[in-house]
Amino acid sequence: MSNYPEEIFKNVISHAKEYGFVFPSSEIYDGLSAVYDYGQNGAELKNNLKTYWWKAMVQMNENIVGLDAAIFMHPKVWEASGHVAGFADPMIDNKDSKKRYRADQLLEDKIALYDSEGKTDLAEELQLEMDKALKAEDLPRLRELIIEHNIKCPVSGTANWTDVRQFNLMFSTQMGALAEESDVVYLRPETAQGIFVNYLNVQKSGRMKIPFGIAQIGKAFRNEVIARQFIIRMREFEQMEMQFFVRPGTQKEWFERWKQVRLKWHLALGTSPEKYRFHEHTKLAFYADAAFDIEFEFPFGFKEVEGIHSRTDFDLSQHQKYSGKKLQYFDPEINQNYVPYVIETSIGLDRLFLLTMINAYEEEDLSTEERADSRVVLRLHPCLAPVKAAIFPLTKKDGLPEKAREIMDRLKVDFNLQYEEKDAIGKRYRRQDAIGTPFCITVDHQTLEDNTVTIRYRDTMQQERVNAADLDRIIGDLVSWKNVL
Amino acid sequence: MSNYPEEIFKNVISHAKEYGFVFPSSEIYDGLSAVYDYGQNGAELKNNLKTYWWKAMVQMNENIVGLDAAIFMHPKVWEASGHVAGFADPMIDNKDSKKRYRADQLLEDKIALYDSEGKTDLAEELQLEMDKALKAEDLPRLRELIIEHNIKCPVSGTANWTDVRQFNLMFSTQMGALAEESDVVYLRPETAQGIFVNYLNVQKSGRMKIPFGIAQIGKAFRNEVIARQFIIRMREFEQMEMQFFVRPGTQKEWFERWKQVRLKWHLALGTSPEKYRFHEHTKLAFYADAAFDIEFEFPFGFKEVEGIHSRTDFDLSQHQKYSGKKLQYFDPEINQNYVPYVIETSIGLDRLFLLTMINAYEEEDLSTEERADSRVVLRLHPCLAPVKAAIFPLTKKDGLPEKAREIMDRLKVDFNLQYEEKDAIGKRYRRQDAIGTPFCITVDHQTLEDNTVTIRYRDTMQQERVNAADLDRIIGDLVSWKNVL
Repeated sequence: MSNYPEEIFKNVISHAKEYGFVFPSSEIYDGLSAVYDYGQNGAELKNNLKTYWWKAMVQMNENIVGLDAAIFMHPKVWEASGHVAGFADPMIDNKDSKKRYRADQLLEDKIALYDSEGKTDLAEELQLEMDKALKAEDLPRLRELIIEHNIKCPVSGTANWTDVRQFNLMFSTQMGALAEESDVVYLRPETAQGIFVNYLNVQKSGRMKIPFGIAQIGKAFRNEVIARQFIIRMREFEQMEMQFFVRPGTQKEWFERWKQVRLKWHLALGTSPEKYRFHEHTKLAFYADAAFDIEFEFPFGFKEVEGIHSRTDFDLSQHQKYSGKKLQYFDPEINQNYVPYVIETSIGLDRLFLLTMINAYEEEDLSTEERADSRVVLRLHPCLAPVKAAIFPLTKKDGLPEKAREIMDRLKVDFNLQYEEKDAIGKRYRRQDAIGTPFCITVDHQTLEDNTVTIRYRDTMQQERVNAADLDRIIGDLVSWKNVL
Repeated sequence: MSNYPEEIFKNVISHAKEYGFVFPSSEIYDGLSAVYDYGQNGAELKNNLKTYWWKAMVQMNENIVGLDAAIFMHPKVWEASGHVAGFADPMIDNKDSKKRYRADQLLEDKIALYDSEGKTDLAEELQLEMDKALKAEDLPRLRELIIEHNIKCPVSGTANWTDVRQFNLMFSTQMGALAEESDVVYLRPETAQGIFVNYLNVQKSGRMKIPFGIAQIGKAFRNEVIARQFIIRMREFEQMEMQFFVRPGTQKEWFERWKQVRLKWHLALGTSPEKYRFHEHTKLAFYADAAFDIEFEFPFGFKEVEGIHSRTDFDLSQHQKYSGKKLQYFDPEINQNYVPYVIETSIGLDRLFLLTMINAYEEEDLSTEERADSRVVLRLHPCLAPVKAAIFPLTKKDGLPEKAREIMDRLKVDFNLQYEEKDAIGKRYRRQDAIGTPFCITVDHQTLEDNTVTIRYRDTMQQERVNAADLDRIIGDLVSWKNVL
């Protein structure tokens, strides 16, 4: 199916835990389903991915600014956006087993079964009927189909089903202590609405002229029925979204442009272009007039990493309608008021993190004729590496630790460094390879004489002797954001 | 009460909105109580505060590493930490007005009333009885006191009270769609527990040796009954917390050290030391053996900005007990296993943000004998300024915009810049003063000849002519983190 070595996904997950990238949340309490924590190296890698995106979007573009909106929003936001009514899955319970299922998945499973049994007529008929019922949001009809096709609960084996009900994917909570003020609020299921609701505040206070964009990084929450595949689909996740506001009629052109710009951003990290592809949505959301995904080839197949969506004026118009506030822009070039159209670029940060880990992970065979040898190396782009350089005194004595720390103290304001004096140098190299540190710097007895150190490169494992005074520049050049921006 | 000019707090709030620092959340829907969004300049300032803290804590300290734990945690975490049982306020409802009050606040108000009426005996007696009831968590007794002292609802004017009930300050939500899996989870009321629960994972995967610290920045949530004072007390807020794990018996020494280190961090930004003071907690939490706040003088008085707490081994011991997992450390120096003691440093990031705004805000009188003049200037430390430099072409023609953009394109990878060509230069200076931009660079006709530009300094309003080729260095030197780390 893919060019990945077998078991790579499993190995990356266990490597991520062993080396402090990703831990299951609340692991000492046996974890919390579909929630993960980023460890000491994961936190740095995630921060570096955020920085790369923020710099590329906000800092490099004169007409894009940032925003940091709260997770809690007024509940009407989610009525206007359509999430209260529409962001739901149809669920059915078996009364005997007390198990709950997605009604459409039970039907899909049955269709697959018919197909495998060669009953293609039945399969096609059921598919047609199900699609019709889903489109009409006809929940009783979904139940009828389950009964008619004699679908049974895999656990109890009975067809003793409840009604089909909509289960909303938004998490809700109660805000406020005063009884009469108490109100249901939702944890935002996407960060985009924080941008739309603040569109006018940002446009006015920032004197922004169309076309312009607002970028945001933040948490979002979805009560996924089936959360799975490590950090690919989590109930708590992080998005990096940019909404670009344009004059109606120009959206196609901007859409094409952002598609290309965003793909370039991914490729600038040095990933092989064959691992990426565009995927066009054939079924568009009712408000969208174009939608493409950038997909990456994971070990389990191509999956969406980023979406580029032409959302028309749907969101702003809805907020205008529900809030009663005008969300228009006066365009001096055409002397006209309008509700802007929106092109969205939306990345799942956790997915991007996983992509980066999988892409960087290599079990490298270093065997020679004399002996078997291997290493696990994370070939992260130096800009993304959690630790930029590790500093080793060759031994723990003769003033080498002091000299190593002296060099470290000079460099650490600019770079995230690690100091290690335990174990043989070779072992220390391997530990740094495993977390993707691009450079290891060794201080030895010669350093005390002529202030030179050895610098060892992660990818080539080559070493060279350089002057310690040049380290700022050597490291600085290789980890500079200029290399990717 | 303070040395602030009158109305400064009100003016800072409106300035924050007008210039894209802080907007009320969901403002087009008339806002959401005690929740705020950070606008384009606020997001940058907040990010810079985070960077300053992260660099100072994680990057500069060999023995402190970062973490990024999820907001959702296993519900048992909050049983172990004591939040499920103890993180609550006693509330009472008036049956006629349907209004809800904190029972202890009703009593406090009565005590204050007695005092103001000279009935000090009654005041003292009630204080004593209330303290006793609170300590014993005797809710019926609290109600009795309200009745006995004839306390009436300020709205209905009646004493028709319900029972007193505990109202937990944690937000809760339901996770999972499968009925039998559905479980209450909480939005974390503090980030610290994410560190404690991951203590062993980080220690082992990072090969950390005691003493060491784990630092984290993240959102926390408290359903405050009375949220107030702009972003001082919000229901959704952000913390920057570091837990430092030490050998039992050494906590006092580390506590003293962290107190000093943290105060220095605040002062390094150039704030007048008189605005800061230490405040010692006299009533310690039952698990703490020392607690100091770093307080800052806001216009409404000294308020906590950061807490330094000696938390003993309480949290780790509780998690050990509730999870059944050993959370011990083997200390090779003394050849002993123990549960580490913890010193915590904990900042409210939003409060720090407000402090920074208030501290930087100045309405400066620039009047001369000839004419009245003034400006609003944010004297932010250059490291914290949202925009590092603004680039202006003197006029919109003669190739000046092109030249200005050429300079901008060279600098923007390293610095967050703004380009402005509208309005007279003086007006553009004022707009940049208002958002705290330390440098304005003007490209004029001479620039085309000799590649020099004028650089105008925010604080002194002085201008000098410099070579455009030197701008990297001039700006770089002044916004460098080296100045504060």
